[in-house]
Amino acid sequence: MNIGILGATGAVGKQMIECLEERKITINGLKLFSSDRNAGREIKFNNKLILIEKVKEGSFKGLDVVLGAVDNDLAKFYAKDIINSGAIFIDNSSAFRMDERVPLVIPEINRDDIKKHRGIIANPNCSTIITLMAIWPINLISEIESMIASTYQAVSGAGINGINELIEETNLINKNKKSEIRPSVFKHQIAYNLIPSIGIATSNLYTTEEMKMQNESRKIMHLPNLSVSCTCVRVPVVRSHSISVTVITKEKISIEKVKNSIAKFDGVNLVDDLGNDIYPMPINTTNKDIVEVGRIREDLVFKNGISLFCSGDQIRKGAASNAVDILECL
Amino acid sequence: MNIGILGATGAVGKQMIECLEERKITINGLKLFSSDRNAGREIKFNNKLILIEKVKEGSFKGLDVVLGAVDNDLAKFYAKDIINSGAIFIDNSSAFRMDERVPLVIPEINRDDIKKHRGIIANPNCSTIITLMAIWPINLISEIESMIASTYQAVSGAGINGINELIEETNLINKNKKSEIRPSVFKHQIAYNLIPSIGIATSNLYTTEEMKMQNESRKIMHLPNLSVSCTCVRVPVVRSHSISVTVITKEKISIEKVKNSIAKFDGVNLVDDLGNDIYPMPINTTNKDIVEVGRIREDLVFKNGISLFCSGDQIRKGAASNAVDILECL
Repeated sequence: MNIGILGATGAVGKQMIECLEERKITINGLKLFSSDRNAGREIKFNNKLILIEKVKEGSFKGLDVVLGAVDNDLAKFYAKDIINSGAIFIDNSSAFRMDERVPLVIPEINRDDIKKHRGIIANPNCSTIITLMAIWPINLISEIESMIASTYQAVSGAGINGINELIEETNLINKNKKSEIRPSVFKHQIAYNLIPSIGIATSNLYTTEEMKMQNESRKIMHLPNLSVSCTCVRVPVVRSHSISVTVITKEKISIEKVKNSIAKFDGVNLVDDLGNDIYPMPINTTNKDIVEVGRIREDLVFKNGISLFCSGDQIRKGAASNAVDILECL
Repeated sequence: MNIGILGATGAVGKQMIECLEERKITINGLKLFSSDRNAGREIKFNNKLILIEKVKEGSFKGLDVVLGAVDNDLAKFYAKDIINSGAIFIDNSSAFRMDERVPLVIPEINRDDIKKHRGIIANPNCSTIITLMAIWPINLISEIESMIASTYQAVSGAGINGINELIEETNLINKNKKSEIRPSVFKHQIAYNLIPSIGIATSNLYTTEEMKMQNESRKIMHLPNLSVSCTCVRVPVVRSHSISVTVITKEKISIEKVKNSIAKFDGVNLVDDLGNDIYPMPINTTNKDIVEVGRIREDLVFKNGISLFCSGDQIRKGAASNAVDILECL
């Protein structure tokens, strides 16, 4: 296979390169594309240096797959070129996710949807991937009717600059230089703080990020009537997202069945022994492809409710690894 | 009034002294009690130095009120002495909170319960106080039947040592000395991490801290049938707790009515303009008595559901200020 990575120098792009190496996928050629600023640099892949190119006419020719790790505008701009050159575009932006002609895929859940693609396959939102990996094993036992989720999202969701901003602000505060803090990636100081807003405000007073949890979950799980109420909060954590979730299922199911189903499910680790201080934590999922699920218990409000807490690396399964998982399905 | 503070050198005890000064309460005498380790030191109050004493027989004699900022065991140990000496014990521990003979009070909500005291008045759990300050104005419009809450709790909940541990760990990580981290206050590293467990595991797989949200809320709001499902998570924030809450009310109520009720309610600030990046944040409530409430919106799962996000200082309204509020009612 000949593979291209669009946006190869960002946090997700770099992780895609790392994932391709780790998975030992047979690659004939790898082309790396980036903005003007980074073009001309070289990145190591399988012990060879690969030149980072600026995209120009014909750049995508001869490629079988292009992994996209750029923003919506750039994804839309290059999509046609990619498809016209005969490559399949696995896009991590949200530009095409809700397009009916575009499959939105977490391979562990809806791998078969990939077959319907017409050139573009969309990679879901990071919090949505991590949450659905945790709750899909429950849906396998009894259909999920609704979900209430509060997220604890790492700064890596805003890329490498988000991580740098957290560390720099924390250093300033620890050195009693709080007055020098000038947030630029985030709207407010994120060090030792929480920002309960990710994305853009929509008319129903939810954010775009919060609505993705409902809209993308419906599409991925093939549950068009699923109702989801989500609150997205940025937390001063480096790169793993965590989610506190309550799901309401059609039938009442036992905690034991839920745990068994989660334990058997690929890509997920059951990490659940509260009495011994064992539960999902961002530091334990950082730089891993696995999603941890724990704190599983009967919800105290809903007869058919299950509550849990999950955590997964936003850059890996939340983005790059899932895109490479899709690539492997091809 | 003659006032004593039991546990005067801890985070909450120190804050109680500060609150007494700020409120300009007329105090004849102030006695400060602490453990062996801190006895003999002096603390400034209204420009006078006050000696910190070790409690001995007769220490509480002549006092009208003792504010307690010690753990459950010490609170139980000294309660009898305090009452026998004729003082009223306003206790911040959880030792007496669920005792039927002991009022559990947030003055803005159930001030009248104070009258029924028999020597002890209990100060509620910190997250419970902050959450109930935010949702009580909703209950004034339509009775709350159930609540789903996910907390984002600051390290100050574990006292001054909790704050120090966060800062020290963060410094070690920023200096690439992660391997030197030895958590002692918390079960795991808290810097750049989340710990989804506060308190002790109970048989229903919730923690004691999570069950307080249901049990104490029922007692304070006089809603014996209220069902609450709560997930408590420690976050790397210094001293303000935040809570993502969904409440389900008896009748459907409009967002406008909810906002009006919150805006009118004493002790709470409506901070809710998502489009302009205005919402409750821990850095904005730190060292303030006010609880911020925002992100108010119709829940997408429940017809009669309202979702919101609130934040308040754990040491102030979550502990010391509420105790002093109770004192002022006396």
